[in-house]
Amino acid sequence: MTAEEHEAPECDAAISLAFSILGKRWSGMIVDALSNGPLSFVTLRRTVTRISDAVLSDRLSELAGAGLVLREVDPGPPVSVTYALTRQGRELIPVLQQLGKWASENLDVAARD
Amino acid sequence: MTAEEHEAPECDAAISLAFSILGKRWSGMIVDALSNGPLSFVTLRRTVTRISDAVLSDRLSELAGAGLVLREVDPGPPVSVTYALTRQGRELIPVLQQLGKWASENLDVAARD
Repeated sequence: MTAEEHEAPECDAAISLAFSILGKRWSGMIVDALSNGPLSFVTLRRTVTRISDAVLSDRLSELAGAGLVLREVDPGPPVSVTYALTRQGRELIPVLQQLGKWASENLDVAARD
Repeated sequence: MTAEEHEAPECDAAISLAFSILGKRWSGMIVDALSNGPLSFVTLRRTVTRISDAVLSDRLSELAGAGLVLREVDPGPPVSVTYALTRQGRELIPVLQQLGKWASENLDVAARD
């Protein structure tokens, strides 16, 4: 079918919005790393290998700004800071997993075509 | 749960790979626009609003390189060129739709938090 009359699907804007946040390097991996529960900055940095302190800090601020991640401070003592997914962030997990499944099934093969 | 022993999930690399291709502006929208069938360059440009000829051309090359889009030439006459999703590209559609659904349900709300 050649769909000359094809109209832009309604979810275009939503997909663009998702990619504007998740399309940055590491963002998806940070959300994924938090999927098993809250982590400290140090553990998060160790989990998301090869990310720098500065970039991890930037990404956490962006994800917090988008409402996906929450910074939680326990006054202690000793004071401790952890990062946790919000409900919105948790609901993204199955979508990220589907994307990962699709990518591992299709992208390697595609790159060799 | 504070998961200090949390290990990097296996699909991290695959998710990164997916975002390296789909994370660029317009790529997701181009795949989405082709979901109803092959389109000519001109129609594709009209469907993906605000994209320039040069950027659309670049994105189509990248998507073809990743095996998601196929450039099909009908020698005619008149000669006509259309762009179509490959099987890999078609399998991405439900994932993109899920991502769009998540984004429209969560991101606007999140931005206002």
